[in-house]
Amino acid sequence: MHRTKVRIVEDALDANHTIAMANRDDFDREDVTVVNLMSAPGAGKTTLLERALDGLAEEGLRVGVLEGDVAGSFDADRLSVLNIPVTQLNTDNGFGGECHLDANMVRSGLAELALDDIDILVIENVGNLVCPAEFKVGEDARVMVYAVTEGEEKPLKYPLMFRSADLVLINKVDLLEHLDFDLEQFLGNLDAVNPGVERILASARTGQGMEEWCSWLQRRKG
Amino acid sequence: MHRTKVRIVEDALDANHTIAMANRDDFDREDVTVVNLMSAPGAGKTTLLERALDGLAEEGLRVGVLEGDVAGSFDADRLSVLNIPVTQLNTDNGFGGECHLDANMVRSGLAELALDDIDILVIENVGNLVCPAEFKVGEDARVMVYAVTEGEEKPLKYPLMFRSADLVLINKVDLLEHLDFDLEQFLGNLDAVNPGVERILASARTGQGMEEWCSWLQRRKG
Repeated sequence: MHRTKVRIVEDALDANHTIAMANRDDFDREDVTVVNLMSAPGAGKTTLLERALDGLAEEGLRVGVLEGDVAGSFDADRLSVLNIPVTQLNTDNGFGGECHLDANMVRSGLAELALDDIDILVIENVGNLVCPAEFKVGEDARVMVYAVTEGEEKPLKYPLMFRSADLVLINKVDLLEHLDFDLEQFLGNLDAVNPGVERILASARTGQGMEEWCSWLQRRKG
Repeated sequence: MHRTKVRIVEDALDANHTIAMANRDDFDREDVTVVNLMSAPGAGKTTLLERALDGLAEEGLRVGVLEGDVAGSFDADRLSVLNIPVTQLNTDNGFGGECHLDANMVRSGLAELALDDIDILVIENVGNLVCPAEFKVGEDARVMVYAVTEGEEKPLKYPLMFRSADLVLINKVDLLEHLDFDLEQFLGNLDAVNPGVERILASARTGQGMEEWCSWLQRRKG
């Protein structure tokens, strides 16, 4: 059984690669910079995105969002009041919901978005530290949100996700004083799997790091 | 592509059911009560398990652990100093690691455990709020750990996981005073997907709820 499964997955990955390239062509044609935003559930993706939207609007950058969730449209509803194009992708068809977005799901969402009105498209992936990292969707960059409440060892336990990130937003640092969390140990683990990866110490709650986060997004637009 | 994928997954689930039943027969034969422990990454599964082991040893109950991780043996190493049988299952063969344990993986780990020396087997699943809930492994009960740092809306976003739990350990309540978290709203969302499910307010850090958690495990043994 296991051997069969591996073969099937490789076929699916090849199809994913083909569709990711098609997405990439569309993004290039419309000059859209695409960020794949990933994290465990509850790390703060949506809140960090809300914080960035204000700053980017001030710079005249138009942001669009593709929201990936197993069920519901909570995050899309939160963002839609900000008057930006938001499309919800639900993965709950099938047997209880896919645990990630793949290139095909993203492509199905693109039909709903006017790419020529968007400078930066943020794809907020399903909250999961494993499978989202395995599927390229045509993005320019991957941003990973990690909350300090999750423990120091996570880069070593979920190496693919941390290794594939171009930026790690280390969120909820306002809680550090209330946690038994060794930041130096975490940073050492992060460098062990992704040496020197860009990182920002952030708190969506207090605003720490939000300026750096907006600047980083602006620089990706170039 | 999507239609093909759904069909394959259904075949895999049928095989999973068959193997889960075989696991169940082995557990019944050796009178082992089996708990499938699930949560998002970093919610506190291993720490809550460490806390329970002391209490259960005092009651003369012998606990064994199957540790599921994508990579590494951090949690198994932590538990092994407690002088209990611990077997590590890594899911990192294939393409970056499976995001859950299935019945076949659990069965491959059982060969390493002397079930006749175990009263309660705890299977610590891969940290993930989606796929672990989709795969029965032959367990008697499912315990879900949820950390209050994850936000109120999670039961509605990950309904299958919350719906399939027999007990929800609401962990990290010592942080409530430092969070913008509405506990009543969370409990309402929990009851919306799994009405009246047993729940324990817990803090592995302060010890709150640990007596209840041990008693719950003891009662499952009956």
